[in-house]
Amino acid sequence: MIKLELDRKNNAIYVKTPEDVTALSKGFYGDMKKGEITLYPEEALYLMDIRNGKCYDESGNTYTFNEIASRYTERKKFFARYMTYKDWRDRGLIARYSSEIEEKSDLKVEKKYKYKQFKPDAYSINGVFFPDDMITVVDDEIAAKELYERYWIGQFGTYKAHHRGKIGKLDIYETIFMIKHGGLSLSNSSLEEVIKLAEERIKYFSDLYSVYEEWRKSGYVTKSGFKFGTHFRIYTPGASPILTDKWIHSKHVVHVFSRRSKMLISEWARAIRVAHSVKKTFILAIPGKEINTKINSKRLNVDFLLYHRKKGGIETPKEGKPKYFMFSLSEDEYLGGEELARALRECKEFGLEMLMAIADRESSVTYYRIRRIELPKSEYEYFEIEWEQP
Amino acid sequence: MIKLELDRKNNAIYVKTPEDVTALSKGFYGDMKKGEITLYPEEALYLMDIRNGKCYDESGNTYTFNEIASRYTERKKFFARYMTYKDWRDRGLIARYSSEIEEKSDLKVEKKYKYKQFKPDAYSINGVFFPDDMITVVDDEIAAKELYERYWIGQFGTYKAHHRGKIGKLDIYETIFMIKHGGLSLSNSSLEEVIKLAEERIKYFSDLYSVYEEWRKSGYVTKSGFKFGTHFRIYTPGASPILTDKWIHSKHVVHVFSRRSKMLISEWARAIRVAHSVKKTFILAIPGKEINTKINSKRLNVDFLLYHRKKGGIETPKEGKPKYFMFSLSEDEYLGGEELARALRECKEFGLEMLMAIADRESSVTYYRIRRIELPKSEYEYFEIEWEQP
Repeated sequence: MIKLELDRKNNAIYVKTPEDVTALSKGFYGDMKKGEITLYPEEALYLMDIRNGKCYDESGNTYTFNEIASRYTERKKFFARYMTYKDWRDRGLIARYSSEIEEKSDLKVEKKYKYKQFKPDAYSINGVFFPDDMITVVDDEIAAKELYERYWIGQFGTYKAHHRGKIGKLDIYETIFMIKHGGLSLSNSSLEEVIKLAEERIKYFSDLYSVYEEWRKSGYVTKSGFKFGTHFRIYTPGASPILTDKWIHSKHVVHVFSRRSKMLISEWARAIRVAHSVKKTFILAIPGKEINTKINSKRLNVDFLLYHRKKGGIETPKEGKPKYFMFSLSEDEYLGGEELARALRECKEFGLEMLMAIADRESSVTYYRIRRIELPKSEYEYFEIEWEQP
Repeated sequence: MIKLELDRKNNAIYVKTPEDVTALSKGFYGDMKKGEITLYPEEALYLMDIRNGKCYDESGNTYTFNEIASRYTERKKFFARYMTYKDWRDRGLIARYSSEIEEKSDLKVEKKYKYKQFKPDAYSINGVFFPDDMITVVDDEIAAKELYERYWIGQFGTYKAHHRGKIGKLDIYETIFMIKHGGLSLSNSSLEEVIKLAEERIKYFSDLYSVYEEWRKSGYVTKSGFKFGTHFRIYTPGASPILTDKWIHSKHVVHVFSRRSKMLISEWARAIRVAHSVKKTFILAIPGKEINTKINSKRLNVDFLLYHRKKGGIETPKEGKPKYFMFSLSEDEYLGGEELARALRECKEFGLEMLMAIADRESSVTYYRIRRIELPKSEYEYFEIEWEQP
């Protein structure tokens, strides 16, 4: 048994018994001062739930898990924090409050993607726009075929069989891109009308288009990610639909998370899950400019500082470095793009990767590792996300 | 070459050359009257795109694909209809306009699910509700463990390790269900407050809860579908988390589509895709009562009448029966729950299954087969959805 002592006046929980203090301090629980440990609520609850901790007040009354937990029911995502803390501890690993971060780490967090400037030749192409389907059919068969073969812009003929049929179709992103950069005119619509319609029809369309355009201009082939449950799939610069006999497979999918939007965590998890099941790298795009609010290490959005494994053992606050910031969430929560962007900026500031931990309704925790990547000359933020079993 | 004749005055396209009429009539294109064929727009475009059709008007002017297609740009989802029609035809199969349906078919469309009435014993349990996480922690360890072991309600201890830890947690659905039917009281909240909060936090919560409750009352174990990207996963009546040494796997996931909601087609496809990748049957739930508007076979929501294969050949309108109604959609469209429910009711009325055909931005078509199932005593509609390659 570990004896926890509740100080009701100061709303604090202490451990004072010497042998408990020694054991907990070896396990990196709480803050030690003058031979006593002050526990954070998640730690106290964990000890009560798993380590046979018993809690008493000054008068010797005992307190149950719920009696202690009840004191924190009004805290934001308190239980998600508890469940994710518990899961990390259950793995035999150490988690501390994120506010304990002391200095910038020297971890290299950026992975650089290729860049190859792209601008299509100045064509002179006409097309008919189908507003309800947001598709353009190109008038000139030969030009449409060339666009498809040279740049993989549009779809000529039939999908995966471009010699079957003779019409060239441009999707809404390709339509706008080609009007802006490739000499396309529409016989029944203007650029402004097309953009207006797309913005009415597709939520956060301008953010989606910005990302599409940025990857295209960086040389990547950017196509529909429909089959993989994301906004786009991309091919590295130089990819062509006709170079090889075999169909080339994309290796990356891109999902755009607008700063203005809110996404249900379970939908987010679903998108990553599909990418994982088809063995593609999931890239999260956060378009728009960073908001440069000052980061105060005592008031972080990220929840815990995580120490991971090392060869033959585990990292600890004493000998080693934290590896991740944990960002704790629960299944039914809505996460805002700006909120996530801010938490990711905290990770960047302190040189740590983010481990997003999602507690589902059964208290099972799923982890996603989020690594910042760099697309040269980009104004936006991009991250690779992987489903991780830490 | 097939010669198509555009009658500009009547906005109709005819085929009159005897050999073309013979060939097209064998292929079940258009409507034949007095030795001439009148083509539907999708058929005319298909012949121009794929079968070397050439279109002329009365004065001998030629018309391109776009010049014909332009006449229909204002029609709802015209291009999605064209792409899905084309895809079916490209498979060597016959599609006709849905309005040609003549009589009810005798296809059996209902699959019956098990039913085993369930009501938990009247417990007297207390718990603390965490509003931001929408989770209840049960006070009484022994009762919580029993609920978990007997009914698989809540999660006792740790997920997949219920002997680790000693607190029992109920998710938001279980919390409400147990307050209503199992004698749970919350020390810091009332049923009304919990429901109000859930409705504020989770879109269409009352619809989700109705479905949860209906499957629970029918004897199924209903748990979070988070890992599979859906609202719920279900186990057949009698399933227990502790009966066997091995973890039992659910075989079905349930996704709730509220009649009041609109869902982006690509999100819908993603949910089905995940279920498919984990080899689970995807059940679509449409709660709430059917709106009994009269169905007029000339104004259906479903798009095409599909003839499929048969042993050694294909079904045709001449010798055989249609198998599906095709419901044509495109990737970036928002589908309303009520709209889908209506299209599904049309399928029911005529005894056909629905084949949902989604044209993505590259004109590739993905099919989902939608089969009505019956959960005895249910007031709602349920469908099994399968990714199909017809």
